Amino acid sequence: MDLLLASSPHNLQYLLGGYRYFMYATMDSVGLSRYTPLLVYPRALPEASVYIGAGNEDWAIEVEPLWTPELRNVAWGASQAAAEAARAIRAVSRRPLAVGIEAPYLPAEAFTALRAELPDAHFLDATEVLEELRAVKTPRELGVIREASTAVVDAMLATFAATEPGDTKADIAERLRREETNRGLTFAYCLIAAGPSHNRAPCPLRLEDGHVLSLDSGAHRHGYVADLARMAVAGEVTPKLEELLAQVSSVQEAARAAVRPGSQGTAVFQAASSAMSGCPGREQMSFLAHGTGLVTHEAPRLTAKGSPPYPATHADRPLRAGMVLSIETHLADRDCGFIKLEDTVFVVEDGFEAVGDHGRGWNIVGA
Amino acid sequence: MDLLLASSPHNLQYLLGGYRYFMYATMDSVGLSRYTPLLVYPRALPEASVYIGAGNEDWAIEVEPLWTPELRNVAWGASQAAAEAARAIRAVSRRPLAVGIEAPYLPAEAFTALRAELPDAHFLDATEVLEELRAVKTPRELGVIREASTAVVDAMLATFAATEPGDTKADIAERLRREETNRGLTFAYCLIAAGPSHNRAPCPLRLEDGHVLSLDSGAHRHGYVADLARMAVAGEVTPKLEELLAQVSSVQEAARAAVRPGSQGTAVFQAASSAMSGCPGREQMSFLAHGTGLVTHEAPRLTAKGSPPYPATHADRPLRAGMVLSIETHLADRDCGFIKLEDTVFVVEDGFEAVGDHGRGWNIVGA
Repeated sequence: MDLLLASSPHNLQYLLGGYRYFMYATMDSVGLSRYTPLLVYPRALPEASVYIGAGNEDWAIEVEPLWTPELRNVAWGASQAAAEAARAIRAVSRRPLAVGIEAPYLPAEAFTALRAELPDAHFLDATEVLEELRAVKTPRELGVIREASTAVVDAMLATFAATEPGDTKADIAERLRREETNRGLTFAYCLIAAGPSHNRAPCPLRLEDGHVLSLDSGAHRHGYVADLARMAVAGEVTPKLEELLAQVSSVQEAARAAVRPGSQGTAVFQAASSAMSGCPGREQMSFLAHGTGLVTHEAPRLTAKGSPPYPATHADRPLRAGMVLSIETHLADRDCGFIKLEDTVFVVEDGFEAVGDHGRGWNIVGA
Repeated sequence: MDLLLASSPHNLQYLLGGYRYFMYATMDSVGLSRYTPLLVYPRALPEASVYIGAGNEDWAIEVEPLWTPELRNVAWGASQAAAEAARAIRAVSRRPLAVGIEAPYLPAEAFTALRAELPDAHFLDATEVLEELRAVKTPRELGVIREASTAVVDAMLATFAATEPGDTKADIAERLRREETNRGLTFAYCLIAAGPSHNRAPCPLRLEDGHVLSLDSGAHRHGYVADLARMAVAGEVTPKLEELLAQVSSVQEAARAAVRPGSQGTAVFQAASSAMSGCPGREQMSFLAHGTGLVTHEAPRLTAKGSPPYPATHADRPLRAGMVLSIETHLADRDCGFIKLEDTVFVVEDGFEAVGDHGRGWNIVGA
């Protein structure tokens, strides 16, 4: 790769030292096109980098200057941004270059313009290379994720406390959205199950006395996602419920205990599988562990499943201090419902540190 | 166009009767790729339509069924979704088809896969055709926009009331984000100017006694954007301030008065220009009117400017009842600062209806 052309919100934020243009952070339509910020970064030549922003982006960069030596805040859409990037790329070299793009995060409109302007260029997908750069977090990044994880769980506990039988799943999800927002987070989604149903969509279904309630939510702070899940019950914690959550907890505990620098990625799955095989509910249980950061599912990729979105690229590679894992187990019980815990765990020098680690037992609705 | 392949959040919501998958409404990364919902809609054959969603999208559609006869919730990324769409397209016809895509909202990864799978297809950009469909709103859509506009202004007035000199612009923008969220809106952005500066980015600059404060925010409800701007001052409203806002108001009033069904799009700009030419601050003033709905700037496109993102496609076409306009005027005064009003106006049978139309004078910070 002779040159990187970054275009995703997460990788631009990473490469630009935290910057994300506030105006298009959640809605990125610009007239008939789409906000398409681009960073042209020639290999080993940061001093020749060019950032291409929107036509009204000066005011954001004026208050938060970028390290890139050149700024061109001129683009009102994808093809205009691409044409500007092509000009910057031609200025780097006249010979045909291998250009790394982010194929999922470059609009077809921009790619078409790039190929027309740079007919001799060879385009490669830089997605995995960029992801790998982000896998080990700095102490500052870990601080943000710690804060966000704590706030997500605080918001869940406040939501449980404010909920009453008769509230709909949609009401409860909206309550969580507000509790997260009022703690400085940007809400991303709430998966919610109530009663015996395993459906996790917010909807008009009402919580009833005796129902379990599962909240699983992603919210971010400065772009860093915290993704955790906690349980509550509308009424009494029966011995059966205690036992079901204990099974889920035992898998979570086993997985955590395998987390330490140098441990192979696959060790986390092996520990969880082994614990799960001893659980009475194992046929209804599922385990997943994935890296998390600016993207909800990112490196390290430990999954034993290796299905398309989650290739197990780190299964046979060592965990490193500063990596962040989201560890999740659920048990979909036919009678009681969907029982799930999801925790955020840092890989630290002497093992693991769990953040936002409160509220992992049964919480009581309305208490 | 033989077949439409829709992929943008706004057009999918429009074509699917309001549906938007809650999980990826604001963050759309899925593993190493990107959530790429696709609707395959053969011309005049809705009964042959296919919706392609994410691998975990069943639970959302179970509680909110879609009209499309066929669902394939199998895609864990852009290329997988595109391959599935190509299969569906080949099933419609074996002959080479003209396929309408949304070039700004189709990832390059998906477009590359589509072209490989459908080597004989001819791809056209359907962006403007789809936008035109959305231009006239239904009473239900107008109701949502009315509600959202009222809530945005209510949130601004609550923010002004809770603000004190010493607060930073970042504090104030965050306060508005919470006030909007707590009224059921999804915050999109806050442009904020304070004191004599014309910079509109949230930042650590502090509001001081005597400063003007301009809030301009977009927030949505069920995907429909409300985008309005209101003014406040930290202290006394001086005659100079009254006079500056009166100039802005006069342009807004003139523009509104030109809004009625059958009136040419350009008439709104002509009325505003004529009013502005009589203003003492005209050299520092700027006017814009644009359609709004599921996208902040959409049809009707009235602008006299006709620059790339805002082509004046409706300048010489009649306004129609049910269209929604965002009308905005600012005066960037060197001494007092940035003075702006932005209003939401419906085209109705007997002229116009302004929604969220309160708080258009000087509001007082902390009052």
